[in-house]
Amino acid sequence: MKAEIITIGTEILLGQTLDTNSAFLGSSLAGIGIDVHRIISIADSPEAIENALDSVLESTNWVFITGGLGPTKDDLTKGVLTRYFDDELVFRSDIYEHIRDFFSKMGRSPNILNKEQALFPKSAKFISNSRGTAQSMLWDHNGRKYISLPGVPYEMIGIMEDNILPYIKDSQKTFLESRYFMVQGIPESELASRLKEWEDNLESPLSIAYLPSPGLVKLRLTCRGKINSSSELLKKLDHESVKIRKILGDDIYAERLIGIEEVIADLLIKSNQTLTTAESFTGGSIAAKLISISGASKFFKGSIVAYSNEIKISELGVVKSDLLKLGAVSKTIAIQMSRGIKEKYNSDWSISTTGFAGDDPSGKLPVGTIWISISGPGVEWAKKFTMGSNRNRTISKSTLTALNQLRIFLKNQDLGS
Amino acid sequence: MKAEIITIGTEILLGQTLDTNSAFLGSSLAGIGIDVHRIISIADSPEAIENALDSVLESTNWVFITGGLGPTKDDLTKGVLTRYFDDELVFRSDIYEHIRDFFSKMGRSPNILNKEQALFPKSAKFISNSRGTAQSMLWDHNGRKYISLPGVPYEMIGIMEDNILPYIKDSQKTFLESRYFMVQGIPESELASRLKEWEDNLESPLSIAYLPSPGLVKLRLTCRGKINSSSELLKKLDHESVKIRKILGDDIYAERLIGIEEVIADLLIKSNQTLTTAESFTGGSIAAKLISISGASKFFKGSIVAYSNEIKISELGVVKSDLLKLGAVSKTIAIQMSRGIKEKYNSDWSISTTGFAGDDPSGKLPVGTIWISISGPGVEWAKKFTMGSNRNRTISKSTLTALNQLRIFLKNQDLGS
Repeated sequence: MKAEIITIGTEILLGQTLDTNSAFLGSSLAGIGIDVHRIISIADSPEAIENALDSVLESTNWVFITGGLGPTKDDLTKGVLTRYFDDELVFRSDIYEHIRDFFSKMGRSPNILNKEQALFPKSAKFISNSRGTAQSMLWDHNGRKYISLPGVPYEMIGIMEDNILPYIKDSQKTFLESRYFMVQGIPESELASRLKEWEDNLESPLSIAYLPSPGLVKLRLTCRGKINSSSELLKKLDHESVKIRKILGDDIYAERLIGIEEVIADLLIKSNQTLTTAESFTGGSIAAKLISISGASKFFKGSIVAYSNEIKISELGVVKSDLLKLGAVSKTIAIQMSRGIKEKYNSDWSISTTGFAGDDPSGKLPVGTIWISISGPGVEWAKKFTMGSNRNRTISKSTLTALNQLRIFLKNQDLGS
Repeated sequence: MKAEIITIGTEILLGQTLDTNSAFLGSSLAGIGIDVHRIISIADSPEAIENALDSVLESTNWVFITGGLGPTKDDLTKGVLTRYFDDELVFRSDIYEHIRDFFSKMGRSPNILNKEQALFPKSAKFISNSRGTAQSMLWDHNGRKYISLPGVPYEMIGIMEDNILPYIKDSQKTFLESRYFMVQGIPESELASRLKEWEDNLESPLSIAYLPSPGLVKLRLTCRGKINSSSELLKKLDHESVKIRKILGDDIYAERLIGIEEVIADLLIKSNQTLTTAESFTGGSIAAKLISISGASKFFKGSIVAYSNEIKISELGVVKSDLLKLGAVSKTIAIQMSRGIKEKYNSDWSISTTGFAGDDPSGKLPVGTIWISISGPGVEWAKKFTMGSNRNRTISKSTLTALNQLRIFLKNQDLGS
C-alpha cells in the first residue's frame, strides 16, 4: 500500500515552520506497512491544491492532506476539496454540537467563524477530533482514499492515533521491520567499503541505508514482505544482523536510535560508577550532553571547564612547568587534567579534552588538533585526533569521540572481582 | 522568480529525518526574492527522481535537488540526472585533486568509492564544496536551472552560502533588503500584540515576518522594489527600523543574525572584563555556547558544572546548612553559586543556574523551576523562572535567558570611572 502526503501551508515553503507533520505521518504509516512514496508541500492557494490533487501518482492508495482547516480566511482546504470532489457543504448540527461543547469546556462560546466549521461535505466521511474544532474528512474517490487533516500537529496526531491508524492497521496485510546499527567516528565512505562485500550479496526483500550526521552514521537494515511470511522474514533480518555485527563489532555502539550518552548512562548505572569531566576544548559540551539525560545525577558528579591555563593549574593540578614546556595541547597535560578532575571530584571515571579550535599559535600542530584523555580504574589513556577547521563541528565531533572512547572502556572493564 | 525543491531520501519519507534542508532553502531563497512554490520529497529511486523532474511546474525557474550525492551505493542522484539530461560522466582530475586534498587535511586517503565521486557530468557546471567530497552540479536546460546539492545539511548550506546565493543575488535586478531584530524571551504572540498598531500601518513594499525558535524570535523587516529606486527604499527601511527600535527598546539584543553569546563576547572584550559560570541545571550549556565563539579565551575563564550538592559545597562555597534548609533550587543557593565561582576563578562577572528539569522531589515547586543568578561589579542578582517540562527545551531556554540577563547588565554598566 502506498501513500502520498500533501502539506498545505506557505510557512513551510518559506522555511518558517519545519514539516514535522509529514515526519509523523511517514513514520507512523511505515510502522503499519504503508509506504509514503511522496510528500508535496504547497502554498495556501486553490490552484496549488487542485494541481497537487491532479498530480497524485497512479499507484497511490491513500492521500493525506494536512493544513488549511482552521476558522480563518486563509484556510481554504475544505472548500477546495468539496469543489474538487463535486460535493456540497451542508450544515451538520451534530458537528456544531461538538464545537459548542469544545468551547464550553474552555468557558468560551463559538463565534461566527466557528459556526462555519460545522459546514461539512455531504458525501465525505466524518472523522472526529477530540483536540480541536477543525473536523477531518475522508473521501473515497475512484478506489483511492483522501483524508484531510488539520495542520496543528497536536490535533493531527490525535486524529491519526485515535481514529485513522487503528482503522488502517486492521485492514493491512504487509510485514515491514527495520533494525538499526549506530556507529560513531567512522566516515560513511569507510563504513560502506567495510560493508561492501556483504552489501553486494544482500538480496531483496532486504535493503540497507546509510543515514549520516556529524560524527555519526545510522545504518538501517529493512525487510518487507507479505504478512503471512513474517516469521521467515524475521529470520532473514536476524541472519543479516548477525553478519553486520560480525563485520562492525564494537564499532556499533547501539542497536536502537539513541545517543552514546545514553549507552554510557546505562553502563555507569549498572556498574554503580560515577563520571566527571575536565573540559578545555569542548568547553562543557560533554557535560551538557550527559546532563540532557533524565537521571544524570545518578552517575554524573560534575565538571570543570578549564579554559584558561591558570585554572588548569590551580584547579586541576596541571604542572606549570609541563604546561610551559609541552603546551596545553599535549598528551601529558591531557592526562594530568583527567587525573586531576577524577581525584578532585572523587569519581570512578573521568574525561578530559584539550585542543585548538583555530590555528595553533605556535604553528606546530595542524588546525583542529585535540587530545582526549580518559582515566578510570586501572586506566590512564590519551589519544590525539585531528578534527578539521569548523569550530562547532569540531567541538561536537570531539564530544562524540570522547564519549565513544569512554563507552569502549566501560564495556570492556572487568567487574568480576 | 520561482523555485521548486526536490528532496531525495527515503529517511524523510519514513519520518526519520526532518527536512531541514528545504526549510533552509525556502528561507534563504525568500531572502533574495525567490519564491519556493513547491517542495517534493521522494525516495532514493531512479523512477521517483525522473518522475519528479518530469512533473516540474511550467512556471518554475530554478530546481534545487538535494540528497543522494554521497559515495555509497544508495546515492543515485548523479547517475540519474546525467542520464536524464542526456549527459555523460567523465573523470575530472581537478575534482579528484580536491577530494585528495580534503582527505589529506584529515590525515586520511580517499578510497575507491571516493574516486568515483570525481566522475562528473560533461555539460554540467561544477560548483565546488569546501566542506566535503560530494560535488554540486548545475545544468541549464530549456531555460531552467537545475542544481544538485548534497543532502548533508552542513555541506549543502556551505555551497549555498559560498557560491549559489551570491551568484543568484548578483543576477537579480530587484532591490531587496532585509533588516533583522533579534528578540529573546518574549513569546511570538506577545511580540505581535506589541507591534500590532505599527504593523497595521505598515505598507507595501515593506513587510514583516516573525521567525520563532525555542526562546527566540527573529523579526525580519523586508523591502523589495525596483533597483533604480533603491535609495528611496533604503530610507523607508531605515524609517520603519527606527519605529521598531522605539517599540521594543532593550528587548532587541542585536540587529544581525547572531546569538546572544556573540553580543556578550563583544561587550566583555570591549570592557576588558572576564566571565565564569557555575552551572547545575544547565550542566555546561552556557559554557559550551560561550566557547563556540572564536576568541572565547579573551573573556571566558572557565566553569564549574556542579551537578551534585557535594560539589556545590566543596567547590563553590555553598553553605551546607542553607542547602539543607532551603533546598538547592533557591535564591540563596543561586547567589552563593554565582558569588562562589566569581571569587574562586577571579572573574569580573559570573552566571549560575540551579533548577529541576523533572519534578521537584519535595513536590513544592512546579516542574521546570529554575533560579538564575548573576554576580558582577556592584551586582548580585537572582530571579526565578518556570520553563516547562521538556528537558532539552528547558535547558536551552534557560541558557538563552541567563545570557540575555547578563547582556542587559553588561550593556547598562557604568564604565565611566
